[in-house]
Amino acid sequence: MLIKSNIPNMIKLLNPDDGDRLKDYIEKAFERYKYFIGYPVAQDFDYSELYPLFKLPLNNVGDPFIESTYDLNSRSIEFEVLHFFAKLFKAPENNWWGYITNGGSEGNLYGLYVARELYPAGIVYYSEATHYSIQKNIHLLNLRSIIIRSDENGEIDYNDLRQIMQMHREQPVIMLANIGTTMTEAKDDISKIKAIFRELAIKNHYIHCDAALAGTYSALLNLQPGFDFQYGADSIAISGHKFIGSPIPCGLVLVKKNYKDRIGEVIPYIGTLDTTISGSRNDHSPVFMWYAIKKWGLKGMRLRALDCLELAVFTVDKFKTAGINAWRNPSAITVVFPEPSLVLRQKWQIATENGFSHIICMPGVSKALISQFIEELKEENT
Amino acid sequence: MLIKSNIPNMIKLLNPDDGDRLKDYIEKAFERYKYFIGYPVAQDFDYSELYPLFKLPLNNVGDPFIESTYDLNSRSIEFEVLHFFAKLFKAPENNWWGYITNGGSEGNLYGLYVARELYPAGIVYYSEATHYSIQKNIHLLNLRSIIIRSDENGEIDYNDLRQIMQMHREQPVIMLANIGTTMTEAKDDISKIKAIFRELAIKNHYIHCDAALAGTYSALLNLQPGFDFQYGADSIAISGHKFIGSPIPCGLVLVKKNYKDRIGEVIPYIGTLDTTISGSRNDHSPVFMWYAIKKWGLKGMRLRALDCLELAVFTVDKFKTAGINAWRNPSAITVVFPEPSLVLRQKWQIATENGFSHIICMPGVSKALISQFIEELKEENT
Repeated sequence: MLIKSNIPNMIKLLNPDDGDRLKDYIEKAFERYKYFIGYPVAQDFDYSELYPLFKLPLNNVGDPFIESTYDLNSRSIEFEVLHFFAKLFKAPENNWWGYITNGGSEGNLYGLYVARELYPAGIVYYSEATHYSIQKNIHLLNLRSIIIRSDENGEIDYNDLRQIMQMHREQPVIMLANIGTTMTEAKDDISKIKAIFRELAIKNHYIHCDAALAGTYSALLNLQPGFDFQYGADSIAISGHKFIGSPIPCGLVLVKKNYKDRIGEVIPYIGTLDTTISGSRNDHSPVFMWYAIKKWGLKGMRLRALDCLELAVFTVDKFKTAGINAWRNPSAITVVFPEPSLVLRQKWQIATENGFSHIICMPGVSKALISQFIEELKEENT
Repeated sequence: MLIKSNIPNMIKLLNPDDGDRLKDYIEKAFERYKYFIGYPVAQDFDYSELYPLFKLPLNNVGDPFIESTYDLNSRSIEFEVLHFFAKLFKAPENNWWGYITNGGSEGNLYGLYVARELYPAGIVYYSEATHYSIQKNIHLLNLRSIIIRSDENGEIDYNDLRQIMQMHREQPVIMLANIGTTMTEAKDDISKIKAIFRELAIKNHYIHCDAALAGTYSALLNLQPGFDFQYGADSIAISGHKFIGSPIPCGLVLVKKNYKDRIGEVIPYIGTLDTTISGSRNDHSPVFMWYAIKKWGLKGMRLRALDCLELAVFTVDKFKTAGINAWRNPSAITVVFPEPSLVLRQKWQIATENGFSHIICMPGVSKALISQFIEELKEENT
């Protein structure tokens, strides 16, 4: 009801036809939002107190650590958000840098870019369960790469990784570790990966963690396996519109500052340092993320993460009671089950791969909604 | 006054300290917005009718021409915006593709990416007046490049270009043409560039137009030199937050579809085609751009562009009357003048390079504001 009341009765500034078209679109979006359990985006956000900022052409152009003459920006707020995550991910004090991105993909591109500057002849290793955007990023950066097998649960196959690395011991390693794969939320264990480096005496290595999905709540709850800078990450990318929640896709990337400085050396620019992938960067996402962090606080965010885990336990139970074979990885909020019919997949916006689908127990998804979906699925199966 | 009233009296959802901090930030942003004549962003937008959409996690993930199971999206609206610009830029019918980006940089990166896929051994030529992000994009893509001299007004030096190309006739040419340089809004004439191709019998060439600044209004008013697909562009990137206006930086890139399809071949993905640089893409920017196009219509947008040109004429006159040596390129809305003091540059957020500054006569900038600035400058000079 609260949500419904936000839909405008009419669009005043457009001609009636265009206004109706827009109103229909907005109504349809709110309608489709009612059945939304298949994608990893929090639904419990409310940034309406920040809407006045949408009157302004704000822009955090360039490096967040360096002032700009473009003064309509939220750099100081962005810095606080970066600082919060640097602490959460145990980044080395005084040796970290980062910025708020347009999403996980940009953060992963940045991490791989830094890795390439460090090891131009490096080979990127990543599992077959890795998000498709990684392959695109590798291609964009003109890097060599090798795809490693993954286990049934989606985790990288360490034996396959060891064998392939063994064959290329002369080349630096750029390891792309998944902290929550897209389909099954599997986590590659970077401690095991580092053990392989030691075993093969590989000294030139770089680990980038694609923690878009599970990074924030895993770190908040200290879930195992650990993946932060103390565990050996050289850069970490997370998503802001997933666990934290944002209407605009956003994310955050953190790298060791001494690595990033190599990019600064390679590309010295006039005026400000152009150290980010995007030049102009929206000012609103940092303010959203800051607002969320402040509103919930560390304790509130942890409770929110625990709620998700509890919902995942509930969901697997509910599936099993209904006689449907569902499972989840340890400490995962993604519940995997055999793909339902196209009708249900479309109604509930459920992604599917190789015969499996998933529900993601994100903040704001309710037990009632999941129960309703499972009821519909049961009816379909009988 | 209207603007002032949008500032919240208090932030209810945060604790008082954080709430005050945020309120201060919002107030400061509105205050700084009063003195904003140095950056190319329209200030006359009002998207408040669309704010309800900020309650939803909308996402135009992936290729705008292909449906997604993520149904909370504005693909059909995005397509209409793309279609509007394809027509404006005279893209070949049934042979164009594009998407709405996070800004000019991403569009330029995409254009150069497509060019590289076509000509992996190509050399990128661009003038020294080119936006710094181009150099970063070239580096990211691992492309070879040569910087060409520019004339005093910022336009590429065609003689220098001819001489350098002559020396590398065996390599494909990837030409980066500026349709409005950052500092002086100079336009490289792609007809002259094509004449050089003919003269040197260069058959393998690709022209990407960085039309971030001047593309939209130049096309709306049919300004010379022309730069659209009929003139020889292979791809064009524009900015959405500049002439059109948007609180969130955005842009649009158009390419010839047969070129883009080469990328589809190289990277075939599961599920949907991952043909854009960003994976997740915000749904709001397309709706903003659509809303602006519908609100103003073609005629309204042309009038708005003419207002900008008139304001530029007014500004140069005003400077001259004050005894300050200002100038602008033909049909440009950027007015260049000797750099003022740091105090004035900071107050008015004015970018400076090599001793010169500029005012950009964007929609929403008033004669009164420019007059006030020139008054302050005059006082400083006396």
